Amino acid sequence: MFDLKNYIKIKNRVVNDALEKILRRTQPGETIYEAMRYSLMAGGKRIRPVLCLAAAEAVDGRPEDALMAACAMEMIHTYSLIHDDLPAMDDDKFRRGKPTCHMAFDEATAILTGDALLTLAFEILASVPLENGDQAAQWLHVIRIIAIAAGTQGMIQGQMLDLAAEGRNLDVNELESMHALKTGALIEASLQCGALLAGADRVQMGYLKSYAGNIGLAFQVADDILNVEGNPEVMGKAVGTDRLHEKCTYPSILGLEASRLFAQKLVRQALQALEPFDNKAEPLRAMATYIIERKR
Amino acid sequence: MFDLKNYIKIKNRVVNDALEKILRRTQPGETIYEAMRYSLMAGGKRIRPVLCLAAAEAVDGRPEDALMAACAMEMIHTYSLIHDDLPAMDDDKFRRGKPTCHMAFDEATAILTGDALLTLAFEILASVPLENGDQAAQWLHVIRIIAIAAGTQGMIQGQMLDLAAEGRNLDVNELESMHALKTGALIEASLQCGALLAGADRVQMGYLKSYAGNIGLAFQVADDILNVEGNPEVMGKAVGTDRLHEKCTYPSILGLEASRLFAQKLVRQALQALEPFDNKAEPLRAMATYIIERKR
Repeated sequence: MFDLKNYIKIKNRVVNDALEKILRRTQPGETIYEAMRYSLMAGGKRIRPVLCLAAAEAVDGRPEDALMAACAMEMIHTYSLIHDDLPAMDDDKFRRGKPTCHMAFDEATAILTGDALLTLAFEILASVPLENGDQAAQWLHVIRIIAIAAGTQGMIQGQMLDLAAEGRNLDVNELESMHALKTGALIEASLQCGALLAGADRVQMGYLKSYAGNIGLAFQVADDILNVEGNPEVMGKAVGTDRLHEKCTYPSILGLEASRLFAQKLVRQALQALEPFDNKAEPLRAMATYIIERKR
Repeated sequence: MFDLKNYIKIKNRVVNDALEKILRRTQPGETIYEAMRYSLMAGGKRIRPVLCLAAAEAVDGRPEDALMAACAMEMIHTYSLIHDDLPAMDDDKFRRGKPTCHMAFDEATAILTGDALLTLAFEILASVPLENGDQAAQWLHVIRIIAIAAGTQGMIQGQMLDLAAEGRNLDVNELESMHALKTGALIEASLQCGALLAGADRVQMGYLKSYAGNIGLAFQVADDILNVEGNPEVMGKAVGTDRLHEKCTYPSILGLEASRLFAQKLVRQALQALEPFDNKAEPLRAMATYIIERKR
């Protein structure tokens, strides 16, 4: 039986150490550094970096080759949370059990901190020591994948659709499209970059894309379910907020039980996509199950 | 006599056409596209792209090789203005004679539009068709230069210092450091990237760095002077706002006449830095003078 808890613990340590080192290259002692560190090191689940490193392993590559991509994904995820939490957006006061960035600092600092993390993500992707021109082309490819996933054809468009959905009833297809952009795109990019940097071929990339699409959506369905029946103390944030804000969610459209079955179906499909891989894909298999069984 | 007005007109057309094409690759018809287009095509002076292209010419290169870097600089400049204008930051309602992005759309859209332009800038830098691995390494270098200039060691730190300076008296050295980061870093990066992509050598890069430092600061001194004695109709924004907000500026510290002399001295130094270059640097020479003589 694969020990996912231990695997996540080990990967988190590697990623956290790398993120601390990256931050120290910026402006230690300055407010912007403190604010970046406050949000980036706030104990996130590190799902995107773990998926990135696990994808590299699944295709028989070295996870260390994908480490800077893994870190960049987490920095971009954190920037999106900081901006999403702002009063003009979701106006959230707590995140991961701590005051959100604009509450701990101020709104102007939170805007700039998000900007800084996004910019720093691209800086580190462009700063990996290179052995040859092929590697340079590969990192440019990674930057392109990540920028597209984080931009107006991915996460940002998902956030725009989320804003536009406020007070409207979405059908299940509209909800799925929104989530595919808002969270799915970055999750897919994490897996894609990890595999690409580890030398995956096109066939492997195709299977991982299918895995990514399924777990990305499963992740969101699970999040919606946790917002209904999760434990706020374990989660570090309030629950019941979706219902309070009359947000369209899987439980609100399908009901709680059907949502649970839907998430399970997505995980089964994700596992099917991994069938061509050997036991090096065990971490990815275990992550798929974890995503719908997690408590936070 | 070099015709700068015509030169700027021609370069602006090239840059504007390229920016329109880049935008059309995103989400035409969607709100995010409209908001990006609204701010990006609002008739900015395009000083950074013109400097980028002129630097490529000054070192005897082809400006078209630097076009995507020129566009990226303008997109990053525009994103910084959109975020800077937000209520939590400078709370500006007009820019270039039009309502600012958050006034024309809303605050959430303005935050995401800035994010989108920053992300798209890196996307286009990573998407230039490549002929070989050396070119790939060169574009990675350009991405690194731009990310560093736009990040916590450049523009963002300048904005943090600007926020921290509110209601405080700065001395002239503190004011210079703040501007070197807030506007100087991107101007220097524009020149550096243009020259680098055109194949400049290290000696040429050194001279251009000195030119950049001088005109970057001259640009800011001229901006401060325009805020005192500019014509709001020509400028498309209110004047006298620095004094109203008790901002530290060159005129407030040195007085108007000494500020004018200081700007002239900086331009003389910028021109000296260009002495080793032949007449291909005429556009850069003319830009140095234009920067302190402009009316908007």
